[in-house]
Amino acid sequence: MRQKNNKPLEVKVGKIQEMIELLQPYLTKQLLPFWLDNSIDKEYGGYLTYFNRDGSTTGKTDKTLIMQLRMIFTLASAHRDGYGEGRCAVAAKQGVDFVLDHFWDPDFGGWYWIADRQGKITDDSKIMYGQSFGVYSMSEYALAIDDRRGQEYAEKSFDAILRCASDTYAGGYWEMFNRDWSLKEGGVYGGDRKTLDVHMHLMEAFTTLYELTKLPAHRRKLEEIIDILLNKMLDAKYGTGIAQFDRFFKPLRAILFQNVWGSDRPPDEEARPLDNTNYGHNIELGWLLKHAIDVMGTDLEPYKPVIKKIADQAYEWGVDWEYGGIYVEGPNEGPALQTLKEFWQQAEALTGFLDAAIIFKKQMYWDAFENIFEFVWNKVINHDVGEWLALLERDGTVKWDHLGHEWKISYHTVRATIQTLKRLEQLKKELSES
Amino acid sequence: MRQKNNKPLEVKVGKIQEMIELLQPYLTKQLLPFWLDNSIDKEYGGYLTYFNRDGSTTGKTDKTLIMQLRMIFTLASAHRDGYGEGRCAVAAKQGVDFVLDHFWDPDFGGWYWIADRQGKITDDSKIMYGQSFGVYSMSEYALAIDDRRGQEYAEKSFDAILRCASDTYAGGYWEMFNRDWSLKEGGVYGGDRKTLDVHMHLMEAFTTLYELTKLPAHRRKLEEIIDILLNKMLDAKYGTGIAQFDRFFKPLRAILFQNVWGSDRPPDEEARPLDNTNYGHNIELGWLLKHAIDVMGTDLEPYKPVIKKIADQAYEWGVDWEYGGIYVEGPNEGPALQTLKEFWQQAEALTGFLDAAIIFKKQMYWDAFENIFEFVWNKVINHDVGEWLALLERDGTVKWDHLGHEWKISYHTVRATIQTLKRLEQLKKELSES
Repeated sequence: MRQKNNKPLEVKVGKIQEMIELLQPYLTKQLLPFWLDNSIDKEYGGYLTYFNRDGSTTGKTDKTLIMQLRMIFTLASAHRDGYGEGRCAVAAKQGVDFVLDHFWDPDFGGWYWIADRQGKITDDSKIMYGQSFGVYSMSEYALAIDDRRGQEYAEKSFDAILRCASDTYAGGYWEMFNRDWSLKEGGVYGGDRKTLDVHMHLMEAFTTLYELTKLPAHRRKLEEIIDILLNKMLDAKYGTGIAQFDRFFKPLRAILFQNVWGSDRPPDEEARPLDNTNYGHNIELGWLLKHAIDVMGTDLEPYKPVIKKIADQAYEWGVDWEYGGIYVEGPNEGPALQTLKEFWQQAEALTGFLDAAIIFKKQMYWDAFENIFEFVWNKVINHDVGEWLALLERDGTVKWDHLGHEWKISYHTVRATIQTLKRLEQLKKELSES
Repeated sequence: MRQKNNKPLEVKVGKIQEMIELLQPYLTKQLLPFWLDNSIDKEYGGYLTYFNRDGSTTGKTDKTLIMQLRMIFTLASAHRDGYGEGRCAVAAKQGVDFVLDHFWDPDFGGWYWIADRQGKITDDSKIMYGQSFGVYSMSEYALAIDDRRGQEYAEKSFDAILRCASDTYAGGYWEMFNRDWSLKEGGVYGGDRKTLDVHMHLMEAFTTLYELTKLPAHRRKLEEIIDILLNKMLDAKYGTGIAQFDRFFKPLRAILFQNVWGSDRPPDEEARPLDNTNYGHNIELGWLLKHAIDVMGTDLEPYKPVIKKIADQAYEWGVDWEYGGIYVEGPNEGPALQTLKEFWQQAEALTGFLDAAIIFKKQMYWDAFENIFEFVWNKVINHDVGEWLALLERDGTVKWDHLGHEWKISYHTVRATIQTLKRLEQLKKELSES
C-alpha cells in the first residue's frame, strides 16, 4: 500500500512533451496501421480479430458482435480525432455494411451475438453488453462520418434497449436475452442479474448518443444511469464498484456467465467474495463519468468526491509500486488478491489517473499515471507489431501473448492512446499558461 | 354505508336475459348509430366530438388527441366484436388517416395534443395520457382491421413512451412533456408528478398491445406496470387508488393540472386530501387488471384479494343505495364527499361490479351492478338520442347535459355496453350450465 498525499502537481512540461513524442508516432505509425493492415476482411467484409504475438492470424475467423462493433468505434473515433488520413473512415464504413447486413435483427430489433466469417449467425442471443456497443459505435460513427445509417441505428439500438431490456419497476436494465428478448434463465445464464459492467457501458454509450442527438430524452436516460451507478452500484464508503446484483440491486457474489466477456481468464471454481473490486474497471468508470458530465455541460463539483475516492483506492491498493502497472482486483482495503496485469486495465488506468491529475492537480495521480505509462511502454506493448499483449505476470513476464481474440481488440488500446494524448496536450497547455 | 355480506349469487337467468334484450338493440340501433351518423368529419376527416343534449353540434370543432384516438378505439373494438356491419371499420380507417397525417410527430416521435378542425396543431405538448391511447387505439385497430399501420404505430407509440417517458431510475413513467420530450415544469404543469390515472391507462394499453404482438418485451412492460400499480399506487389496506405521487411514489395531495382530463369539473381551489379515492376509477382498475391477467393467461388467484378489496370498498361507500348509481369520490372509510354522478364512473362500475359477481359469485356485487344498471338506463342515457348525459346531481337531476366535448365521448359508454353484454352472456352461460 502507498499512502495518498496532498502534494501539488509538479510535473514539468518537458516530461509531458517527451511522452507525447513517444505516443504520437506510436499511434499513427504502429498501433493504427496494425489494425488497418491486418483486420479488414477483404473477402467477406467486417473484421478479422484473432492475432498471435507476431501479428499473424490464429486461423480463427468467428465474428463476435463486440469485436465488430468495437472496431467500428475505434476506427470512427480515430477518424473523428484526425488520424488515419481517411483510411479509418473507409475501414469503418465497410464494417457498418457488414454488421447491418448480418448482425441486426430486422424482426425483433437489436443485434445478434456471434456470426461466422461469412456472416451466418451462430449465436442469436441478445446480450446487453453487445447492445450497448451498438449505441456507442453507431453514435461515434455518426459523429465521425457522414452516413445517415449511423444515427439511424444508434437510435434503433437505443430504442431496442429501452423497449426490451429496461426494468421500469426496479430500475436499470436486464442483461441476458434470447433472440426474441425473452429473458435467459438465471444463474450462469445471467437472466436474473444486473451488473456494474453493463450499466457502466450503457453510461458510456448514452453519453456518445447524447453528444450526437442532444435530445432531452437521451439526456434523461444518461442522467438516470449515472444515478443508478452512483447510488446503487458503488460502495458508499470506498466509491469502488460492486460487480453483480439481483433485480433490486442487492449485491451478490459475482459469478462468471456462460457468455463471458471482459475476462480472458477461465471461470473460477466459485463465486468471488463480495469485498472484491476491480481497480481498472473503477478507474474506467471514473473517467467515463467525468466525460459524461462534460458532454452534458453540467457542474463537475458534485461528482468530484466519488471520482476522487475511486482514484485514491486504486492508488493505494491497485497500483504496483514495485514492478509497475495496475493489478486486476482485490478487497476495498488491503493488498490485491489477483496480481496479474491485464492489458485493458492498464489502458483505462492511463486515462483515469491522468484525468484525476488534471482535475485535482495532485502529484500522486501523476505518479500513478507515469508508473502505468512506463509499464505499458516497456512491458505491455509489443513494439515489433504495435498492439498490446493480453496478460502479464506481476513482474511483467508474458502469460498470454495473443494480440487479438474474441474479447481483446483495438477498443481499449487505441482509445487509451488517443485519450492519453488529448489529456497530455491539455495538461501541457494548462501548465504552459499558468 | 351498506355492509358487505357473503350471500351466494342468486340472480336468475331470466333477469340476465331481460338486460341483454335491453342492451343489445340499444347498442346497435341507438348508441353506435349516434356516433357513426354524427361524429365523422366528412369534410376534413377525423371526428367531430362536441354535441348538445339533443345531439346537435355545439359548433366547436377542435380535435383533441384523446377524442380522435378514443373514437378509433371505440369503432375498432365494436368492429372486432361484430357490430356495425362494416361501417365501424370504414369510420375507424378514415380516423387513422387523419391522426397519422396530423397528430403523429415524425421528428421527435409521439402524438401532439390538440389540433384545429383542419388538423393544424394548436398544442404540440406530449401528454402521456394521450400517448397511452396511441398504443391502446392503434393496437385495437390492428386487432380489428387489416391495415399494417395499426401495429406499426402501436409499436412506434410504445417505443416513444419507453424511450422518452420511462423512469429507469425510480420506476414508472413521467407524464407531462413539451414537444421535444423535455419535461414540463412541476406543480400545475405536472412535470414532477406521477399519477395513478396514467399508469392505469398504460396497463390498459400494454394489455391490448401484448394481445396483438405476444412479444416477451411487451409482456414484461405489462407485468412491470401491474406491479407498480399494485405495490406503489394503491392503499395497502383498502386496495383503493391514490391519485398522485412524487417521483419516488410518495403520495401527494392531488391537484388539477393545466391540461385537465378525466374531469368535467372546474379546478378546485386547493389540493384534495390524501384520504380521498375515486370509486369508479378504482373499479375500472379492478376489471382492467382482471383483463390483463386473462390476456397474459396467468393465474388470477394472487390478484383476487385486491380486486375484492376494491369492489368491497366501492360497494360499501361508493354505491348510492338510495338514488342509485355510483358517487364520484370520498375517503376510504366513510360517506362520499362528492356525491354527483358522473357518466364515466357509472360506465366503469357496470363492467367492474359484473366482473366481481362473476369472479366471486356473490350476490352483493350483482346487487351493485343492477343498482347502477337501473340508474344508467333510467337517468344517464338520453334515449332520445342514444348517448349518455355528462353529469347528474345525486338524485339524477341533470347538471351538465352535453353528450360530447373535449373529454367526453364514446369510449366509456360504448366500451361499457359491449363489455357488459359480453359478461351478461358469459354469466348466463355459466348459470345455464350449472
